[in-house]
Amino acid sequence: MSHPSLANRVRQGDRAALAKAITLVESTRPDHRMQATALLDELTPDSGGALRVGISGTPGVGKSTFIEVFGLHLVNEQQLRVAVLAVDPSSTRHGGSILGDKTRMADLARHGSAFIRPTPSGGTLGGVARRTREVLLLCEAARYDVVLVETVGVGQSETAVARMTDVFTLLVAPGGGDELQGVKRGIMELADLVVVNKCDGNLEQAARMTLGDYSSALRLLRPRSTAWVPVAMPVSALTGLGVADVWDRLQEIRSALERSGEFALRRAEQSRTWMWDELSERVLSQLRSHPGVAAVLASLEHEVMTGTRSPGSAVDLLMQAWSAT
Amino acid sequence: MSHPSLANRVRQGDRAALAKAITLVESTRPDHRMQATALLDELTPDSGGALRVGISGTPGVGKSTFIEVFGLHLVNEQQLRVAVLAVDPSSTRHGGSILGDKTRMADLARHGSAFIRPTPSGGTLGGVARRTREVLLLCEAARYDVVLVETVGVGQSETAVARMTDVFTLLVAPGGGDELQGVKRGIMELADLVVVNKCDGNLEQAARMTLGDYSSALRLLRPRSTAWVPVAMPVSALTGLGVADVWDRLQEIRSALERSGEFALRRAEQSRTWMWDELSERVLSQLRSHPGVAAVLASLEHEVMTGTRSPGSAVDLLMQAWSAT
Repeated sequence: MSHPSLANRVRQGDRAALAKAITLVESTRPDHRMQATALLDELTPDSGGALRVGISGTPGVGKSTFIEVFGLHLVNEQQLRVAVLAVDPSSTRHGGSILGDKTRMADLARHGSAFIRPTPSGGTLGGVARRTREVLLLCEAARYDVVLVETVGVGQSETAVARMTDVFTLLVAPGGGDELQGVKRGIMELADLVVVNKCDGNLEQAARMTLGDYSSALRLLRPRSTAWVPVAMPVSALTGLGVADVWDRLQEIRSALERSGEFALRRAEQSRTWMWDELSERVLSQLRSHPGVAAVLASLEHEVMTGTRSPGSAVDLLMQAWSAT
Repeated sequence: MSHPSLANRVRQGDRAALAKAITLVESTRPDHRMQATALLDELTPDSGGALRVGISGTPGVGKSTFIEVFGLHLVNEQQLRVAVLAVDPSSTRHGGSILGDKTRMADLARHGSAFIRPTPSGGTLGGVARRTREVLLLCEAARYDVVLVETVGVGQSETAVARMTDVFTLLVAPGGGDELQGVKRGIMELADLVVVNKCDGNLEQAARMTLGDYSSALRLLRPRSTAWVPVAMPVSALTGLGVADVWDRLQEIRSALERSGEFALRRAEQSRTWMWDELSERVLSQLRSHPGVAAVLASLEHEVMTGTRSPGSAVDLLMQAWSAT
């Protein structure tokens, strides 16, 4: 099968073609990478149509359940096509993707308008983020209206997700008084929307208190955008409370960002960041794999870390090793 | 004069030699860079002895006044030698360094145990940060006991300063109720210590309220370290209230970090980060200045930002242009 036809089948929303394209994009074989690049280039003009929504939340906040209920609202009530991707660099370490088990979103996974893809396996956050961006592009070419990119927030993964999405959502659960304790501070800087889950049954009162705490915290800190002041809102993935409101809010944020011109700026910045990240990664990986550099890198890094050599001198030696064919 | 003797004069704490070494390090002339690298390498084993303290605060919080009073406490009461450096990437744009006018810290600048150096001029944050790290190393070789690195917090400059210091301090002033509003959220993630200035006269009550607000905010968010929970404390650069306590607190933080082993880890990480930052910068700058890359970079970046070319394809073309001699 030639790639123009694969590209066309992706454009037509053919799920098998999309899965095949993703497999190509995630492959590390050099010939696959070349084909993947050609395919991505061909489909780039067809991308950009979806609302890209980042969703971060630590294990235990009910993220899978929320995404399933929210996704079902989008496909059933809003007649939208939804793709769910994940960035979880820990999944390779811990031997399982947060989305590896699709049975956790069984109803959504079975729906004809939904596409669920686990986090790409393999190594660094940079590598995972790069593949996820490419898969996001393919999903847009396949005319998905909303792409949800979820992360458990390990290390810098929220930042990576925030840099590839239009709107960033933090999902939290009710806690006991000191509930913001567990939230990494940097993530509050990224959030356009905080969604307090489990606002039901015995937890409802605690959820309302958590809502108040996050509302205060958001008011105290400088918003990410001049067009939108982040808010906190309650939901229950169990009863469906607030689920439709989340979609209304996301559209409101999108409109506010579009009116101010910030939406287009965020998009251009996503692409520019992607290009420079990829360029840095490719150049540094070429440098690391150079035999002369590889021969001295570990010992130079050790000398630098133990304070017996200045970083500048190590870099000089690495650059020399690199240029010496 | 040969560099061994310059290195020796720096080691002896000769201020004229230190100033000369810094001029060499800040020069962009290739022969100066080579001499600077040799000098830094020679002095690296003599570095590491100072407590490296980052101080961030927006204009108007009284940063210069606080640093002067705090510095005078260290040199006069504690008999310590103090160096003050700055990272202010905006200074080149706005035509003046935050520390360019030493008369703002006239008493400290005149003191024999103090050394004040304005932010290096010239371009990018990366460049400014690199030079500042090198100057910090020289100051340590010259046996300064405490190096204060200040920043006004433009763009990513706090992150750059946090990555080159052992302890990060945020200086704030009393506000009117919503005073955390103006603080960038990311900076709260970095702070080991929040110092509320201007706790005197008419502002004392407002300062106490601000102190309470920051104390709450710090309690709500996850601390940067497992060894130290960040606290907020009041000072007055005018009356001297709390100035000695700041030094006690910094020593307490240092001890806690040392006991847990985190101090050594932060140090090793500072050096490793420095090496990789410098390596990335050098490699990417070599790439950018390649004639073949320079010829196509702007148009490819434009295509990527407007969504007409995939980032991966742009990177392929840039890598090809680069390898084609």
